Amino acid sequence: MAKQISDLKLGILGGGQLGRMLIQEAINYNLTTLVLDPDTDAPCKHLANYFECGSITDFDTVYNFGKKADIITIEIEKVNIEALEQLEKEGKQVFPQSRVIRLIQDKGVQKQFFKENNIPTAPFQLVNTREEMRHSRFAFPYILKQRRDGYDGKGVMKINHAADIEQAFDAPCLIEEMIDFEKEIAVIVARNANGDMKTFPMVEMEFNAEANLVEFLISPSTYPEALQNKAEVIAKNIASSLNITGLLAVEMFVTRNGELLVNELAPRPHNSGHQTIEGNYVSQFDQHLRAIFNLPLGDTRSISNAVMINLLGEKNHNGVAKYQGLEKTMAIDGVYIHLYGKKYTKPFRKMGHVTVVDQNRESAVQKANYIKNTLKVIS
Amino acid sequence: MAKQISDLKLGILGGGQLGRMLIQEAINYNLTTLVLDPDTDAPCKHLANYFECGSITDFDTVYNFGKKADIITIEIEKVNIEALEQLEKEGKQVFPQSRVIRLIQDKGVQKQFFKENNIPTAPFQLVNTREEMRHSRFAFPYILKQRRDGYDGKGVMKINHAADIEQAFDAPCLIEEMIDFEKEIAVIVARNANGDMKTFPMVEMEFNAEANLVEFLISPSTYPEALQNKAEVIAKNIASSLNITGLLAVEMFVTRNGELLVNELAPRPHNSGHQTIEGNYVSQFDQHLRAIFNLPLGDTRSISNAVMINLLGEKNHNGVAKYQGLEKTMAIDGVYIHLYGKKYTKPFRKMGHVTVVDQNRESAVQKANYIKNTLKVIS
Repeated sequence: MAKQISDLKLGILGGGQLGRMLIQEAINYNLTTLVLDPDTDAPCKHLANYFECGSITDFDTVYNFGKKADIITIEIEKVNIEALEQLEKEGKQVFPQSRVIRLIQDKGVQKQFFKENNIPTAPFQLVNTREEMRHSRFAFPYILKQRRDGYDGKGVMKINHAADIEQAFDAPCLIEEMIDFEKEIAVIVARNANGDMKTFPMVEMEFNAEANLVEFLISPSTYPEALQNKAEVIAKNIASSLNITGLLAVEMFVTRNGELLVNELAPRPHNSGHQTIEGNYVSQFDQHLRAIFNLPLGDTRSISNAVMINLLGEKNHNGVAKYQGLEKTMAIDGVYIHLYGKKYTKPFRKMGHVTVVDQNRESAVQKANYIKNTLKVIS
Repeated sequence: MAKQISDLKLGILGGGQLGRMLIQEAINYNLTTLVLDPDTDAPCKHLANYFECGSITDFDTVYNFGKKADIITIEIEKVNIEALEQLEKEGKQVFPQSRVIRLIQDKGVQKQFFKENNIPTAPFQLVNTREEMRHSRFAFPYILKQRRDGYDGKGVMKINHAADIEQAFDAPCLIEEMIDFEKEIAVIVARNANGDMKTFPMVEMEFNAEANLVEFLISPSTYPEALQNKAEVIAKNIASSLNITGLLAVEMFVTRNGELLVNELAPRPHNSGHQTIEGNYVSQFDQHLRAIFNLPLGDTRSISNAVMINLLGEKNHNGVAKYQGLEKTMAIDGVYIHLYGKKYTKPFRKMGHVTVVDQNRESAVQKANYIKNTLKVIS
């Protein structure tokens, strides 16, 4: 018999909560997991078969780590691409492929890719310096995004008028037209090496304005089927154009006139898919494993309405994390706690999530609101 | 704030598949897990925060291990009770309590407990020697069970006539009247320290006659509600009478005239509850944690029809395990693979399980039959 998933070693770059939840699924397939992360207390530390504390952006560290695995994947985009390219050259399987990660690492290149492939997206301009910003044709206010290394709301700012430019990032950036959107939505698509593709049902996101982080996620969306289908087609088009192997999360805006505009991509399990663990027949983590091991993709249908609440560190709390209101939360039916194994909390740090599953959508949203006000990560 | 689940250390005696699935849930609560198991390759080895290779029946080993934990639980009954008693005396929480494990370890004492508490069970007689068997008033054929250390079909035999006694166990045994049963069923009940109790819906088991092991498990049962309620009441009565903290699996026979007779107890997560992971709102593993940490018990309702197939090592195969038919199995919608991380297979060894979830019961059973014939553990 050929080598199968239970014989293989999966190397994961990054040992945070995404890696942790990926390992929770990998256990079911007897998969051997290796994790590289710079944090000695990374959430994956005790779960991986092998944990290495080291830089995921350093060529030698990533290359030597990758040599130990059969298949290499990521849980964060900011990794050393050159090492992954070298590993691919030497015959290792890297999924998503290094060229996909390279493209997505740079929001400027990502936007150009959208343009070249007729993917609807907000009008944009690439700028390298504040000087170039000053000469931009874009009307205020606009959104300024650093091309590299932005995540969890970092590397993004709103430029209201010319004076703001003096405080703007002085690095290669992307100017983007402010979109008057009604809602942010996401579709996660999986594609295996055979080219089979499946999308998860479209979900709706609600943001915490202060932290610029997803606070609530509601699945499935109640937008008209036509719009949902359109979003799924866009996601599949991007996955095909990229020729990606693995998961691809596609975040989009629904504009006030019902148009869809692609905002950003993530070539991996994503915050907008956490509710799939309990809310859908297959979870995004299981699906990612199926995709990268070229196995049949699972059934993405929703089992029930699901609302996901990100559990963010409370403001003004820094230190060893405590979970206030845990018992009250657990007393509610259909509630699933996911703590990420992070010892220390800080304001807006992603410490865990909670998913509420309920046959009745209103009731799911009500429970989620109650939990949002009840469960607090303090120090 | 008082110490909470995420601050505590759970010691688990036994590091097999039940411990493994318990840890998969414990991850979600940031629970620190410590495992003691004599097998250097135990399924829990790489998942526990701390793994100790040692005997779970040796006083010193269990006692010293237990001292490192805040709460101690078991995944197998054959453990050193005296060490657990000593740990309880010194203030450690042991759930299920040592006296419950002691009672259940001995099938003779278990049967006497049923009798004393008016729990319906098959007529029985305790015998210490073959000589006593020869003088038993029980008519042939009858069932002979060793009072101690039987598991997975071991320690049980059918005595068809007097001549069989010469080959019988020569140890303290239990003679039990042969029950002409229609079906074996099980109810799992959870009880926390507050005395809150919840039962999972009754499930039906189908046995592999050759191995005397559960092959199929169907949830929920389609027996009349009255019978199901009766089974749940019996399970709750036993849990209350035992004053147990934790899970209790109650296996029963449904006789041809619709009577319920309790067969055996297991004070822990149990094979008859594996389908709860995907088939019910709360899983038996989550529920066990909730019970032993005195947290609110979860919603035990079924989400869907679920059929669980035990994945047993094929006959005539001994050696490093291979999973034939895995891809074909994964191509079916609503199928969940759970491999137990055991490197070596042998005939009838429990190597994993598969759960099929389907809104249509017939379809779930059909898929399960297909999987039973498709997915094989070979060497």
